[in-house]
Amino acid sequence: MTATVSDQAQQFLASCRTTIDAELERLIPQTAESPERVHAAIRWSVFAGGKRFRPALLIAVGQAFAAPLDHLLRTACAFEMIHTYSLIHDDLPSMDDDDLRRGRATCHVQFDEATAILAGDALQALAFQTIAEDENLPPELRVQLLAELARASGTPEGMVAGQALDLEAESREVTSSEVSRIHSRKTGALIYTAARAGALISGASEPELLAITAFGINLGLLFQITDDLLDVTATADELGKTPGKDARSKKATFPSVYGIEATRQTIQAVHRTTCAELQKISRPTQLLESIADFILNREA
Amino acid sequence: MTATVSDQAQQFLASCRTTIDAELERLIPQTAESPERVHAAIRWSVFAGGKRFRPALLIAVGQAFAAPLDHLLRTACAFEMIHTYSLIHDDLPSMDDDDLRRGRATCHVQFDEATAILAGDALQALAFQTIAEDENLPPELRVQLLAELARASGTPEGMVAGQALDLEAESREVTSSEVSRIHSRKTGALIYTAARAGALISGASEPELLAITAFGINLGLLFQITDDLLDVTATADELGKTPGKDARSKKATFPSVYGIEATRQTIQAVHRTTCAELQKISRPTQLLESIADFILNREA
Repeated sequence: MTATVSDQAQQFLASCRTTIDAELERLIPQTAESPERVHAAIRWSVFAGGKRFRPALLIAVGQAFAAPLDHLLRTACAFEMIHTYSLIHDDLPSMDDDDLRRGRATCHVQFDEATAILAGDALQALAFQTIAEDENLPPELRVQLLAELARASGTPEGMVAGQALDLEAESREVTSSEVSRIHSRKTGALIYTAARAGALISGASEPELLAITAFGINLGLLFQITDDLLDVTATADELGKTPGKDARSKKATFPSVYGIEATRQTIQAVHRTTCAELQKISRPTQLLESIADFILNREA
Repeated sequence: MTATVSDQAQQFLASCRTTIDAELERLIPQTAESPERVHAAIRWSVFAGGKRFRPALLIAVGQAFAAPLDHLLRTACAFEMIHTYSLIHDDLPSMDDDDLRRGRATCHVQFDEATAILAGDALQALAFQTIAEDENLPPELRVQLLAELARASGTPEGMVAGQALDLEAESREVTSSEVSRIHSRKTGALIYTAARAGALISGASEPELLAITAFGINLGLLFQITDDLLDVTATADELGKTPGKDARSKKATFPSVYGIEATRQTIQAVHRTTCAELQKISRPTQLLESIADFILNREA
């Protein structure tokens, strides 16, 4: 891993973000359109300066497998919509009760709780609508993507299950295997499914799809452990959200279970595994490797 | 309209309900499956004794057009999932703040707010997953159904938009056209889309699809106006929810805008229009007519 390789990911993510934001701008109803308040709330949260990691990962995988951008872009945006709806709902007072997100007021603080719930609900529907109506993709592929995205979003194996387990774990000590179980659902499922979606759209072979799945699972884990560590070590300014929050709310995290030093070592090990999975793919995977490096070294 | 015709609908709805409940039982994760609390909450609300009006309507339309039940059943269940998720979220303290639904505690009262939000979120994902994975239907049909269901659920024309407009209207006087606009989105969109879905699955012709759409729009209106009227005239026992709630919360309703007598006249007029639309269809529509009669005469 070198600075140059990490730069490649940074440039790719920056350019991807511009493309994704432009497409989200087209897909999401304007604030002037009724119901104005819900649309304003959706836009407040979607255009809050997120890294667009999930859609960028989908595009990076797709492009490694030579898929054209316009076959990837809408599905990528659908993943970002699901991610953003989950942030809106997770921040609610009855959930994680967070006031600050991506450096500004969370949706229910800026608007109100009812509007935030509805904004999340509408975004979830729009995500599925976006894929269902993507005429660049054959219907058989669209239903496969929709089924995978729905599974990654819901229960028992998806994001909602992860958030439920996370909330349930707040009231007690958790084991290391529980932390892994929570993380694999709460953030892992959507991340590895984004990677898989990129491969599915590109018509990857079954062995390639399996390798990309393993890569995505490990990358998701890397993403979550570095996230946990940043919550302990970074400042609010760097994070754009309240740091130390996990510890105060007794969230199940890697540092809380393993300690900081062992967490750092785990991060290195997971990074190695992530990159090793890429060796199984006979495609240009340098960009994917640089994304893993970027996550390894990220500061926010 | 005769008692016999209404009986036909009643028998159909009762038998449909058994079929739909059995399929929902298969589709929804067991309570024993993790996350247990979310699955218990989903089952608490789904199996609370709902009338299954939307899925039954879909099946009735589909059978009028000679579609086999196993082509209709899963999409029908998906509509019920979306409907139930919307009830769970609408009942939340920050929304309509309702304690009683279908004769028992609402989801957030029986469980807690976070669980209710997550149960609704998971149900929405499961609805789309159910259609995406329905191998009885060709993929082209599945994506069309998914797109229509997503539009009927979200904004700007769907259910979430209706709930947002409804909440926004609570704080002020509303005009009759605003009441129609709210109702057409909040309950109308899902009802007429259920009717359309039955026709789409059956391969109805374009003119038939248009007639069914008009039938569904009018039936949805009939359903909502009778619902509004029952809120004023029925008891809690009959309704299974708190009556008079609309008036107390200054909800936009037909009786509040037109008065009770004019609302009764509107109900008769809408019922006639609903049945007139069925004349345009050269299929056996007696069951559909009996459903319109049943809604006209319903007491809960």
